[in-house]
Amino acid sequence: MFRFRFFIIALFLYTLFPRAYALTPAELHTVGSKRDADAGIISTSSSPFAKLHGIPPRAVHLGDGFWKKRFTVNIERSIPTFFTLLNDVGARDKLLGRKNKARGNSDADLAKWVEAASFALQSQDNRRLRDMLQRVVNDILISSAENGYLHTRYLKRMPANLAKSRTSGDLYCLGHLIQASIAHYRATGDKQVLNVLTPYIDNVIELFGPGKQSCWSGHPEIEMALVELYRTTGKKEYLDFVRFLLDEVNYGEIEREHETDFEHYFAGLPFRFRKELSGHAVCALYKCCGAADYYLETGDKEVWLALMGLWDDLAKYKMYVTGGVGSRPWDEAIGNRYELPNERGYAETCAAIGNVMWNWRLLHAGGEARFADIMELALYNGVLSGVSIDGDKYFYWNPLRSKSDLAQEGYDEGTKDLLALKKEKGISLNIRQRYYRTPCCIPNIQRMIASLPGYMYSTSAEGLWIHLYDSSRLNWHLENGKKLTLRQDTRYPWGNTVEITFESAPAEDFSLFFRIPGWTTSAKVNINGSFFCVIHNPGHYHEIRRSWEKNDRVEIVFDMPVRVVHANPYVRENLGCAAIQRGPLIYCVESTDHQDVSVFDIVLPLNLSDLSQGFEVKFEPNLLGGIVTIMSDVLARGPVSSDEKLYSFERFPKASRPVKMTAIPYFAWANRGRSEMEVWIPWTVKE
Amino acid sequence: MFRFRFFIIALFLYTLFPRAYALTPAELHTVGSKRDADAGIISTSSSPFAKLHGIPPRAVHLGDGFWKKRFTVNIERSIPTFFTLLNDVGARDKLLGRKNKARGNSDADLAKWVEAASFALQSQDNRRLRDMLQRVVNDILISSAENGYLHTRYLKRMPANLAKSRTSGDLYCLGHLIQASIAHYRATGDKQVLNVLTPYIDNVIELFGPGKQSCWSGHPEIEMALVELYRTTGKKEYLDFVRFLLDEVNYGEIEREHETDFEHYFAGLPFRFRKELSGHAVCALYKCCGAADYYLETGDKEVWLALMGLWDDLAKYKMYVTGGVGSRPWDEAIGNRYELPNERGYAETCAAIGNVMWNWRLLHAGGEARFADIMELALYNGVLSGVSIDGDKYFYWNPLRSKSDLAQEGYDEGTKDLLALKKEKGISLNIRQRYYRTPCCIPNIQRMIASLPGYMYSTSAEGLWIHLYDSSRLNWHLENGKKLTLRQDTRYPWGNTVEITFESAPAEDFSLFFRIPGWTTSAKVNINGSFFCVIHNPGHYHEIRRSWEKNDRVEIVFDMPVRVVHANPYVRENLGCAAIQRGPLIYCVESTDHQDVSVFDIVLPLNLSDLSQGFEVKFEPNLLGGIVTIMSDVLARGPVSSDEKLYSFERFPKASRPVKMTAIPYFAWANRGRSEMEVWIPWTVKE
Repeated sequence: MFRFRFFIIALFLYTLFPRAYALTPAELHTVGSKRDADAGIISTSSSPFAKLHGIPPRAVHLGDGFWKKRFTVNIERSIPTFFTLLNDVGARDKLLGRKNKARGNSDADLAKWVEAASFALQSQDNRRLRDMLQRVVNDILISSAENGYLHTRYLKRMPANLAKSRTSGDLYCLGHLIQASIAHYRATGDKQVLNVLTPYIDNVIELFGPGKQSCWSGHPEIEMALVELYRTTGKKEYLDFVRFLLDEVNYGEIEREHETDFEHYFAGLPFRFRKELSGHAVCALYKCCGAADYYLETGDKEVWLALMGLWDDLAKYKMYVTGGVGSRPWDEAIGNRYELPNERGYAETCAAIGNVMWNWRLLHAGGEARFADIMELALYNGVLSGVSIDGDKYFYWNPLRSKSDLAQEGYDEGTKDLLALKKEKGISLNIRQRYYRTPCCIPNIQRMIASLPGYMYSTSAEGLWIHLYDSSRLNWHLENGKKLTLRQDTRYPWGNTVEITFESAPAEDFSLFFRIPGWTTSAKVNINGSFFCVIHNPGHYHEIRRSWEKNDRVEIVFDMPVRVVHANPYVRENLGCAAIQRGPLIYCVESTDHQDVSVFDIVLPLNLSDLSQGFEVKFEPNLLGGIVTIMSDVLARGPVSSDEKLYSFERFPKASRPVKMTAIPYFAWANRGRSEMEVWIPWTVKE
Repeated sequence: MFRFRFFIIALFLYTLFPRAYALTPAELHTVGSKRDADAGIISTSSSPFAKLHGIPPRAVHLGDGFWKKRFTVNIERSIPTFFTLLNDVGARDKLLGRKNKARGNSDADLAKWVEAASFALQSQDNRRLRDMLQRVVNDILISSAENGYLHTRYLKRMPANLAKSRTSGDLYCLGHLIQASIAHYRATGDKQVLNVLTPYIDNVIELFGPGKQSCWSGHPEIEMALVELYRTTGKKEYLDFVRFLLDEVNYGEIEREHETDFEHYFAGLPFRFRKELSGHAVCALYKCCGAADYYLETGDKEVWLALMGLWDDLAKYKMYVTGGVGSRPWDEAIGNRYELPNERGYAETCAAIGNVMWNWRLLHAGGEARFADIMELALYNGVLSGVSIDGDKYFYWNPLRSKSDLAQEGYDEGTKDLLALKKEKGISLNIRQRYYRTPCCIPNIQRMIASLPGYMYSTSAEGLWIHLYDSSRLNWHLENGKKLTLRQDTRYPWGNTVEITFESAPAEDFSLFFRIPGWTTSAKVNINGSFFCVIHNPGHYHEIRRSWEKNDRVEIVFDMPVRVVHANPYVRENLGCAAIQRGPLIYCVESTDHQDVSVFDIVLPLNLSDLSQGFEVKFEPNLLGGIVTIMSDVLARGPVSSDEKLYSFERFPKASRPVKMTAIPYFAWANRGRSEMEVWIPWTVKE
């Protein structure tokens, strides 16, 4: 009790001197071992089965391109406003054991927020953010000081009691706290949070496992966190524990009681035997992330084969054209093969993020572009649609069609109390919310955008890899330690040209690998202004090996037509419909741009022999933060008579009214008030 | 306590002499007032705003046609086997207050079963059924004897306590018990159950209502039950209470606490202000039934206008082509306009039954054929699909497409304990179940089929109305009391000819009204072998007024081609697809009949200028109890390569492989083991 009072006093003193624990800008990035400070989003520099190795976000400085705007809004608006919301709902109070008002998993939301803030600080020193971060870090330290363990709803128990409650989110929260402590450590060199967690984790490892108490992970998350902890500490016990969790063979009575939950949590079957993705979309994808991390450390071939089978299952049968995942709103689950409802799917923002994280891990194994292609698709579409352009409103669901009134839980502007959310009636699916009852997606997209610079490049023994195109400056080194500075200038994804300039390069042969995305038909490459080659087989990394010199300039011009996407006819929802894609961006039609026609009346007349279709592409600098719109002359059904039947023995009249269609990128919808939206548009043969 | 022991002893004695309370066949139908014995499914003989008046089921004797088989299986197999199941799950024990094992609303299941058995006994004296019925009736009597009120989970409380629990099903169960007591009384003349319920109901009426305690009905059902009780007893208080419930204006604090449930239960808004159907499908439709009953007694124009608006909303926007209702499995709700998913809809059997019951009530108002058309459509398709051909396996959901593994709760053959149902994993949607955790649909379809003879004919001041066609003999009278006997001979819906023969008729002018169904193009009428007329405007009742004589014979020949049904293009699920209909029957393709092709690969080549399409129609006496199949030469996609993409910039190959398609009536699917099924089939222009 005395010790507790001491910490209350310490807390009081801290509020008087808020900078007392905070690091100065100079301290940032200078502490910790070199390996930790240099770690990428995941630290595969010593992973024996990773061909690629990440680059820390701080090594990449975003230029004035597509992501810079989002990155800045994320730091200046998204991350701070969510800090305030977490405060308001009592998540910090709960962490401190003061109140129990916040929802169950709020520790995980706070932890993801810590990760987001830590990644952001790697790239940009921001005093306000640093102070906020330090306040949460101090919360964690204070709350854990009393009994040597964290003291929150989930973690206030001694680890020995985990067995009684581990389906309820213990290990999920613990996993997020581990990731947060690692991100914080890598950003600041401050090991305090990690040190506080370690005895708790070690106790878990000691109590559970093969031949000890049985255990399963509940909502997957702890798997990837523990592999990263293994990468950070070198303690093999953590990796072994992940294998134990992935093998799921040591179930005891308590687990058997939860057998009906197994399908939902993607549990109950050794991961290596998995053939199909199923259950809760985020659970399934997070477990795949953990398994991929495990593979990178162990080279377990059975796990890799399972991963490849599951990846095929997703890419060939179960993924939305936006990279979103999750077809069934009622249990937030992945559906059957080809079950991809547009209006009633749920495609949680967290699931699209899980898709990016999984493909990022798979990409590290061998540098296969198919993984980066899906990563890019999900990032620009299913993930980015999760946050508003102004950065403080979000989507939990990301349907591909929105009529108006299908509801999700949300926070109504008129509601004073954030926790008094409209559960039953919900919030319309086409209105972004500042807060959701389960706000998991909010800090998740914040950490994704904050860490984005770390997803752009990798190194391998052969040289440098470029995964994502955006204006940026890389200040890094080859794997032999020799310094390399490189600039990307591009208006990608609006423009189709990328210029890569070496600002400094070691005087030796090394390879530049750059991705030729699957969405292009061909790419023309010039080096230092001279024609170099045309690449006709997209969907791979093109390698150019030479002794690069300062001011060497590679220009890549992607063929970037507007393309019409057809879905497999087994996806009955999309039969007779087409989607519009340009570059990595999926487009949609939104009612806001169509005064004379309902978006659901639009019919695309397609010229089947000429795929260029006469779409008009235009950059609109003042629209939705600056986007490329796609316009076209299309047809529409006439204004529908109120007597129109639901079913008829006659064919319904064909669309014949000429109208102008304006399509915008899917990610940008629902930023101009309530609207209706459609991705898959009915088409007809152009006559 | 002594009184309770007395009843236990009485129960014991009763088991020794099970026939002690039972009525002899001679007693059946002979007791009770003439009005009660003569009542139709609903008794509108004195309803001032009912143009039509029902006929008791016992006045119609089914001949050897379509429904006779189902009617017989219902009595010989369905009703008795469900009695055993209700026993097994403890529903009777619960009613007797002995055990509390059965699920909450089991009183309602028992009550619906009593209704089913009572209707069945009107048509067919069946000793086994009579004994079973008497046992349940005795249960009710015994359970209620102790304190003057029924003694079950819901009704054991004094009515005064209703206020604390009325969202949980009290009034729903009470409503079903009222309907059961009325059906039992009408079938047997035995008023005991009605007498036991009356004080309970009267107490409810006394305690709640305008100016008294506030109240709402929870799951609607009590409304139609109380109108029928008003019709049976003449007590206006019951009708007033229904108005009070429909107006929903007297909510107190307790109701406001349940405000979030209002949308689900179709409550919270005065019925007269309703414009759209929403919420739980069965709740919405049952409330519409109650409101229609209320209209027939009061002529309340606002209620009628609301009913017509809601009917339009259903018929034009929200009904499956099978007459099924309910698009959202996650809350069993009616969806948005045009939201009609085939695989993931739920279309509960009870909702299709609610659709029949509602249209039956609306039909009574003015004899409009559009109501009878939907009633027929739902009966032959969305309702009848709810029970297996052998009569003891059921569907709770009735999707229009079934791939295999989308699950609903059900009873696995391997499960010993009926209540230990597979909740999470569920039962595949394409396997009929003997029992469901919520088995409401089972006794509901039993009472529907048991009462079916009562849906075939009505009378009005002008004469006799024929709503449904089936071989049958009507032994009844005109509204002036003059005897009329008439025979229908037909193979409908397999055959297109109906022969109506007067076996006896009063010597006076009266009208015969017969329905020209909306699905036909024309109907040819002959009288006594001579041409009479051709009717070109289907969808109305054709009236022939004359002095009919014994042996007068009316032959109606319906044009009954195979017709291709198109859905409004706003139903995106059905875009590019067509359904097949012949007569009132919607057809489907089932994998069982297609060895060489997946039903999901079938494409219909349609000749747009010739709608007859060359379908081959064939009666198969030994298939599925005798059905007409529809065969056609169609196209199929080639065997799908495992490398086939989910999305492509190229069009997917057209179907070009010629195959033979066999379609069966939708109601008959899933009777030959596990299968895949499709109603809406992609079509292409025939080249």
